Amino acid sequence: MLTDTATRTKPLRIKVHADDNVAIVANSGGLPAGTVFDDGLTLVDHVPQGHKVALEDIPQGGIVRRYGEVIGIAGRALRKGSWIDEFALQLPQPPALDALPLATRVPPDLPPLEGYTFDGYRNPDGSVGTRNILGLSTSVHCVAGTVDYVVRLIKERLLPRYPNVDDVVGLNHLYGCGVAINAPAAVVPIRALQNIALNPNFGGEIMVISLGCEKLQPERLVPEAYEGAADDTIVRMQDERFTGFGAMVDAILEAAERHLEKLNRRKREPVPASELVVGMQCGGSDAFSGVTANPAVGFCSDLLVRAGATVMFSEVTEVRDAVHLLTPRCKTEAIGRALIREMDWYDRYLAAGETDRSANPTPGNKKGGLANIVEKALGSIAKSGTSAISAVLAPGEKATTKGLIFAATPASDFVCGTMQLASGITLQVFTTGRGTPYGLAAVPVIKMATRKDLSARWHDLIDIDAGRIATGEKSIEEIGWELFHLLLDVASGRKKPWSDHWGLHNALAVFNPAPVT
Amino acid sequence: MLTDTATRTKPLRIKVHADDNVAIVANSGGLPAGTVFDDGLTLVDHVPQGHKVALEDIPQGGIVRRYGEVIGIAGRALRKGSWIDEFALQLPQPPALDALPLATRVPPDLPPLEGYTFDGYRNPDGSVGTRNILGLSTSVHCVAGTVDYVVRLIKERLLPRYPNVDDVVGLNHLYGCGVAINAPAAVVPIRALQNIALNPNFGGEIMVISLGCEKLQPERLVPEAYEGAADDTIVRMQDERFTGFGAMVDAILEAAERHLEKLNRRKREPVPASELVVGMQCGGSDAFSGVTANPAVGFCSDLLVRAGATVMFSEVTEVRDAVHLLTPRCKTEAIGRALIREMDWYDRYLAAGETDRSANPTPGNKKGGLANIVEKALGSIAKSGTSAISAVLAPGEKATTKGLIFAATPASDFVCGTMQLASGITLQVFTTGRGTPYGLAAVPVIKMATRKDLSARWHDLIDIDAGRIATGEKSIEEIGWELFHLLLDVASGRKKPWSDHWGLHNALAVFNPAPVT
Ligand SMILES: [Ca+2]
Ligand SMILES: [Ca+2]
Ligand SMILES: [Ca+2]
Ligand SMILES: [Ca+2]
Ligand SMILES: [Ca+2]
Repeated sequence: MLTDTATRTKPLRIKVHADDNVAIVANSGGLPAGTVFDDGLTLVDHVPQGHKVALEDIPQGGIVRRYGEVIGIAGRALRKGSWIDEFALQLPQPPALDALPLATRVPPDLPPLEGYTFDGYRNPDGSVGTRNILGLSTSVHCVAGTVDYVVRLIKERLLPRYPNVDDVVGLNHLYGCGVAINAPAAVVPIRALQNIALNPNFGGEIMVISLGCEKLQPERLVPEAYEGAADDTIVRMQDERFTGFGAMVDAILEAAERHLEKLNRRKREPVPASELVVGMQCGGSDAFSGVTANPAVGFCSDLLVRAGATVMFSEVTEVRDAVHLLTPRCKTEAIGRALIREMDWYDRYLAAGETDRSANPTPGNKKGGLANIVEKALGSIAKSGTSAISAVLAPGEKATTKGLIFAATPASDFVCGTMQLASGITLQVFTTGRGTPYGLAAVPVIKMATRKDLSARWHDLIDIDAGRIATGEKSIEEIGWELFHLLLDVASGRKKPWSDHWGLHNALAVFNPAPVT
Repeated sequence: MLTDTATRTKPLRIKVHADDNVAIVANSGGLPAGTVFDDGLTLVDHVPQGHKVALEDIPQGGIVRRYGEVIGIAGRALRKGSWIDEFALQLPQPPALDALPLATRVPPDLPPLEGYTFDGYRNPDGSVGTRNILGLSTSVHCVAGTVDYVVRLIKERLLPRYPNVDDVVGLNHLYGCGVAINAPAAVVPIRALQNIALNPNFGGEIMVISLGCEKLQPERLVPEAYEGAADDTIVRMQDERFTGFGAMVDAILEAAERHLEKLNRRKREPVPASELVVGMQCGGSDAFSGVTANPAVGFCSDLLVRAGATVMFSEVTEVRDAVHLLTPRCKTEAIGRALIREMDWYDRYLAAGETDRSANPTPGNKKGGLANIVEKALGSIAKSGTSAISAVLAPGEKATTKGLIFAATPASDFVCGTMQLASGITLQVFTTGRGTPYGLAAVPVIKMATRKDLSARWHDLIDIDAGRIATGEKSIEEIGWELFHLLLDVASGRKKPWSDHWGLHNALAVFNPAPVT
């Protein structure tokens, strides 16, 4: 293990897999040309932090390997000790979807992890929330201004009288009208909105604010099995009984109060950790993501699966190039085929827009050392840990099984977050290398940095520092356990992540692959 | 002319064009079967308000005509006096785009209208604003929570010290990262965001809040010609000089204050009405839209064009079926071809999503009497008045000419509003039959109802009642003039529309026809 001081002075590189012919430079600020490592490797270029150095001479056309996998073809000869920038690598073909091994290496069940609990809110449908929130669903963006207006009033006038309710959240979104609601792909945003209303953190108290003339009629957001008539739960602004804006506002406040009364009767109670539903995602990734934060998240995913909980990983474009490592881990061939179906759908969605998977990564990813989407994907899937994949969800579908689930979503942070909310997460873990103030209003988000530099600078935005793995201060396992315990504390309301401390919340960004009209 | 009392008792129907074989029932609540009109026409069905009655026997396969145009083919025999519901009509083919007359009936210039002025804010680039607003541009949605946080602080701490500044508006949107930024269609959202920052109501004071690693790098929102270095106007949260969230917030407040100082020096001054840039749109339309509000807006459009101002109409899917009435009005063949180009682009965009123009209208439109998109389009284009079309803008392009402009946008109210902001409107007029609380934070929106019922019920949301045209209390010309004078008052800050009174503002909804990743 290295001390902090040693980190600053001693050249440090990270090689992930024995077969790799590249490593990344771990030192803050990178390392200058001429740096000599303990084993004699000498840098021939300046190599920025997180960027790759060739561990051997690689001829033009030779394979560049990281994570034990091909991340590119050398576009020019790469001398031992040289910096491998994004331009040195040619993008390999993605794995062909018609020849993938299905359920061929299903990991055996990990040993159960028992005795862990958190204080959650039990719901009538059997789910358990981590927060007690009144969610104001909306059937169309037309009502957004009104929802903002009433949320302010509810917070001022009503919420103080219902101390057991944590918050009121307006679920504004850009869907609902002006959209091709009968297009095949419209199923995605519609089921996402239906399922967001059912998120366990809203306690089963559905309330919809509607305009009246919209394409997405508000009844569609209220399940048939919902207790009581839909009419008690829907306020339509165009309802002819309302004269004036004040009457609409009064009706919304009255309906809100009925739901607040019910929510206020809920109390936290100890429940097994198996009731957690945790979403994992990464954003603003760098080359450390795949060796510090994401593996620690993966270790924690395994802990959660062992505890009987539900864990989701997502981000199709960051899974696509590593899908050959995932289909063997699917519990059944049918689950493997479902995973391929999601990849194929996205390939065709991107092709229809005359683009492809190389649209990811971002400039920041590249600056952080990620040369291309293959390298990014290999680091991204580390979040899934090592357990068997027990289900695949199409975008916006609700989870119905426990264990490790692939919930197909775009990689976009705010879209992924929204779609995981629909799939039923009650907590999200977010790893970042470049840094983002990302947060969600409906569920707590725990943010983990991949580098110590970021954790130190963003000391009041980042909740866990996985950079300590790169310096050797902590092991992947230790950070994984730290995250696991923090998840239980945050789920119980004993701790607040920084995004909730500041109230930094992104708007809902429902995935709508269909046209607007 | 009919009095209010007469309206309630006397059966009233509106026929638009001499050739029409249908009329719409104007009475509130509709009219029962057996109702006899002055001329002997007897209803054989109950006909709801705004819905069509057959003025003659129409055989199965016969043409149904409104606005002097074919709105459908009778799917069954329609007796004289019967209700023509949406199911009675078969949708005709849209006008073929390869055989349209171009600039064949260019209207002569209308007589100039001189002497009208408003009190506006002159900008360095020659444009004139109707409000003096600090707009906080954003390069990516990741910063949305932070922007909300700082806007609250700026309003509390800074704005009271700069009394000449009307407001501070955070320009959050869902674009910027997690998108296929190199896809061909990405040009649309990118130029929209660039041009929104240049909206005249922001006084040329550009300020961008950026994360740092996003695909849409913030420099792209600052024009090269912008005075001063881009760095003075961009705050990147990932900037390494910031330690902690507080430091980022302080930097944003500091930059905001520099811009507030400059904005605070601006004063309203009288300028000719030719400096107005007015966007027209409709939403929640009904069968009255095309006979009351939209024609009054069209009359006002003509007044504005006569005064030398800029007027935009939009909403491609509501123009498509009436495009044969517009291409002849284009000033040049090139402008006509540009109009066809936008229609064709949208046809293909909808087809790629496996849908078509029938995705519009909405359930509310239909309830309001609009049987199909043809009927809706014929009423919608009435907003354009009668003058020559002097330019066509692709979605999000900035207007550079005066006169009547077709600015291609989706019909979706919030998307159209956002894209018209990009095209440079400083005021918007919004007609509605069903009612919507729609508003924009950056420009005032004047809402006009098509029916008296709505204006009466929504007395504190609707700014002008065009329903008085249906009752004969006012003429189209009178309401058009009323709107023209209200526009000047609102532009001058002398009057506030209801949406601004309540602070009801929809979020930006940037049109992104490209994939998310
Ligand atoms: Ca990611
Ligand atoms: Ca992400
Ligand atoms: Ca419209
Ligand atoms: Ca509209
Ligand atoms: Ca406004």
